[in-house]
Amino acid sequence: MSDKQKKPQKLKARLPRGFVDRSASDIRAVNEMTAKIRRVYEHYGFDPVETPLFEYTDALGKFLPDSDRPNEGVFSLQDDDEQWMSLRYDLTAPLARHVAENFNEIQLPYRTYRAGYVFRNEKPGPGRFRQFMQFDADTVGAPGVQADAEMCMMMADTLEALGIKRGDYVIRVNNRKVLDGVLEAIGLGGDDKAAQRLNVLRAIDKLDKFGPEGVALLLGPGRKDESGDFTKGAGLDADQIDKVLFFVGIKDYAENAVRLAELVAGTSKGVEGVDELNFIGSLVTSAGYQADRIKIDPSVVRGLEYYTGPVYEAELLFDVTNEKGEKVVFGSVGGGGRYDGLVSRFMGQPVPATGFSIGVSRLMTALKNLGKLGVEEVIEPVLVTVMDGDVDAMGRYQRFTQQLRAAGIRAEMFQGNWKKFGNQLKYADRRGCPIAIIQGGDERAQGVVQLKDLIEGKRLSGEIEDNASWREARVAQDVVPEAELVAKVLEILAAQAEDRKRALGNV
Amino acid sequence: MSDKQKKPQKLKARLPRGFVDRSASDIRAVNEMTAKIRRVYEHYGFDPVETPLFEYTDALGKFLPDSDRPNEGVFSLQDDDEQWMSLRYDLTAPLARHVAENFNEIQLPYRTYRAGYVFRNEKPGPGRFRQFMQFDADTVGAPGVQADAEMCMMMADTLEALGIKRGDYVIRVNNRKVLDGVLEAIGLGGDDKAAQRLNVLRAIDKLDKFGPEGVALLLGPGRKDESGDFTKGAGLDADQIDKVLFFVGIKDYAENAVRLAELVAGTSKGVEGVDELNFIGSLVTSAGYQADRIKIDPSVVRGLEYYTGPVYEAELLFDVTNEKGEKVVFGSVGGGGRYDGLVSRFMGQPVPATGFSIGVSRLMTALKNLGKLGVEEVIEPVLVTVMDGDVDAMGRYQRFTQQLRAAGIRAEMFQGNWKKFGNQLKYADRRGCPIAIIQGGDERAQGVVQLKDLIEGKRLSGEIEDNASWREARVAQDVVPEAELVAKVLEILAAQAEDRKRALGNV
Repeated sequence: MSDKQKKPQKLKARLPRGFVDRSASDIRAVNEMTAKIRRVYEHYGFDPVETPLFEYTDALGKFLPDSDRPNEGVFSLQDDDEQWMSLRYDLTAPLARHVAENFNEIQLPYRTYRAGYVFRNEKPGPGRFRQFMQFDADTVGAPGVQADAEMCMMMADTLEALGIKRGDYVIRVNNRKVLDGVLEAIGLGGDDKAAQRLNVLRAIDKLDKFGPEGVALLLGPGRKDESGDFTKGAGLDADQIDKVLFFVGIKDYAENAVRLAELVAGTSKGVEGVDELNFIGSLVTSAGYQADRIKIDPSVVRGLEYYTGPVYEAELLFDVTNEKGEKVVFGSVGGGGRYDGLVSRFMGQPVPATGFSIGVSRLMTALKNLGKLGVEEVIEPVLVTVMDGDVDAMGRYQRFTQQLRAAGIRAEMFQGNWKKFGNQLKYADRRGCPIAIIQGGDERAQGVVQLKDLIEGKRLSGEIEDNASWREARVAQDVVPEAELVAKVLEILAAQAEDRKRALGNV
Repeated sequence: MSDKQKKPQKLKARLPRGFVDRSASDIRAVNEMTAKIRRVYEHYGFDPVETPLFEYTDALGKFLPDSDRPNEGVFSLQDDDEQWMSLRYDLTAPLARHVAENFNEIQLPYRTYRAGYVFRNEKPGPGRFRQFMQFDADTVGAPGVQADAEMCMMMADTLEALGIKRGDYVIRVNNRKVLDGVLEAIGLGGDDKAAQRLNVLRAIDKLDKFGPEGVALLLGPGRKDESGDFTKGAGLDADQIDKVLFFVGIKDYAENAVRLAELVAGTSKGVEGVDELNFIGSLVTSAGYQADRIKIDPSVVRGLEYYTGPVYEAELLFDVTNEKGEKVVFGSVGGGGRYDGLVSRFMGQPVPATGFSIGVSRLMTALKNLGKLGVEEVIEPVLVTVMDGDVDAMGRYQRFTQQLRAAGIRAEMFQGNWKKFGNQLKYADRRGCPIAIIQGGDERAQGVVQLKDLIEGKRLSGEIEDNASWREARVAQDVVPEAELVAKVLEILAAQAEDRKRALGNV
């Protein structure tokens, strides 16, 4: 960073690890997807609000998942006045700060949504980035679990609005209070047992990965993995382990509700939690959301320490093939829960809130797998080629281009080195331009332009003519007076669109 | 940052200086505006591409305006491997890195656009933020100034697409080479004069602020401001100052073209620059852009050191009232130029490029002044109120809400503390809800719902009935069977929309 440091002769162009550039098709897919999500949230009566990327580090708190140490995993730097600032690691902590800072102006309940980049200062890996996008919705100032029920319904509606079929997703709902009740019931209540409780939570979190047997080891004496590495267990006895495994193993809530109620009976939190779960279940059923869409499922354990009541998770149920070629269930694309403590950290009063977050690129991957994105067709620009570089010729090419644009057609004049004409056609080909416009000196003298139908040309040169029956072949090249340029381009584009439609119909 | 540091009892909720939260209306206005800009760029054959917010510090270079020191004004931090990374301060330097890094895969000319946040680690002030949005378009691999001409036309089209009338804006074009020619002509050529040239550039940049007299002082012996502070001058003599002031004072390019050509005759850069200016002038005129839209104007001096040829600026010409209550011309909303050196810093070969940047919030302010944004009406949600908290009642309220949403109506069930009914109607009022749905025990027993037309209610209670002539008064309250809820809501909303239309027509 020193001024005197000698600059290398040639800089190396490279991105910092864990960061990526985004392509046109990804950007368009995300825009298409977020527009649909926004539409659902707006319908539910949510409005946008946004916070900047920086917050004071202390305002973010130490709520980062999988981290006991404050600010671990966060990008931080010191401001001029020595105060530490950090890039946000999620969109919830900044919202809590926003609400607390503007508490007197904000009308509660406060229903908002936002999409934005968040940052994790972690070791990057395959599919693991240090900058990624989340899309959140929250209701602040909502004490009842009817607000959590609404969030679950909104997640379900969002997934359907994105084209995911009923049966291909489920929203699973649990309640941290029930889990707390179970822990209390097996003797793990009280402040002095906090560390052991955390170990139990972490063990449960591995259910997908290691199955009940593996989790039993992690809850008990500990577990040795294939490489021989040993993970210390939570030290529970067999009876305690059985009870925990019963709880997280519940597949059919209705069948097990009585036994669960018995298990947590006598614990204040547990009873409250079961009541809340039942209340949510009734509400969503009344509103037409059956268990195939929103399901009470005690195996949902979300890692974030700040959840205080209902937690919910959106899971996609269809199979995808992973990097190893195995078929796996796609899994979670987002989730959230009730965080009654997050805003009140700043306030002298409790501020109940609930909300959820969608992982935008994960959901986009899922939708691409389903062929539900990129349906909006992007037509590449018509290319006006350059045959002569004098000001008069260039002026004409430029005029043609503007006339096409004025008619609503994507168009560009070739802006590279025009002297090798072959390069221009190569450019048009690689870029997928539908039409090339050509005017050399002879055409100019006659006041005409040549149009090359590049799609038709490609088809004629590359394809065996086996679909002549469904339309007469168009000519791949045409010459028209300058005044008819726009009309002719529109005609060719329409014919190409018709071809695409027929080809799709014929597949 | 230490783990042991004692946490304060209550955190203070505040944003770091120079950062702001964005309101729903601002977010919607920016979305509306950027969608229109995107449409123009797409028509011109540009595609989106995005880079992440971090770059290696050395890749950003020292091109920050108004700064001689590297990385001054940038937010930087060290990665795990000790390498310095910075948050981007513009969207051009990251694009240059992106092109160089992917040079073998990228098809030139490469025409892209992007909107995104950039960061300046500067002292914040009124209207001066440390995070703000830019919207850029660039053509990389375009050696001819026809590409610069295209950028100017695209800026003009963009402003018109946003609703800015012809005559209310102008795109001014200059060329750094002409200025270099003038400097060479007055004896300031050569590497040893670089510092003096920079002082001259900075003096010229103050033309708007101090006028020709002030700039003459800055070009010559120096200038004392009102507070008595003295700024050292560039040390030019009277003849040199005259020539510089002639150049930057040119209002009518055509009238002064001959004298300008004479001034720079004999300098290689100057002659080239004048030729390029004339070429751009001819091209845009051919394409139908007269001097009222795109104007050759030698007073344009853009500060960035990296421009190597044409520079251009979009200026809004209408008056606005500033903080001091004075009428001032709105001024620049964006600009750019040719930066042939920026990509080639990474490469063994020259990579010519040109592009421009729009300051999104400045342009948004301008459009708001003109009443060109926020025309898309946002209807606030219909509020389903809560009279009873039992699971059956809540289930019904929730079902009503979902039925409304399914019919395409923005709706929400009250999610705050419902026990004081007055609070619910106060909420509906402050939020601007058009209708409140009410169902107490009696209505529930009868299977009906009550609808309150809150807009009509407001009008009836607050307004003298002087417009009875244009429509019959609607009833502000109505009771319908549950099954007719959606139809009735649609009917009231339609009547309210009709009222708004008539009111607008009557204004």
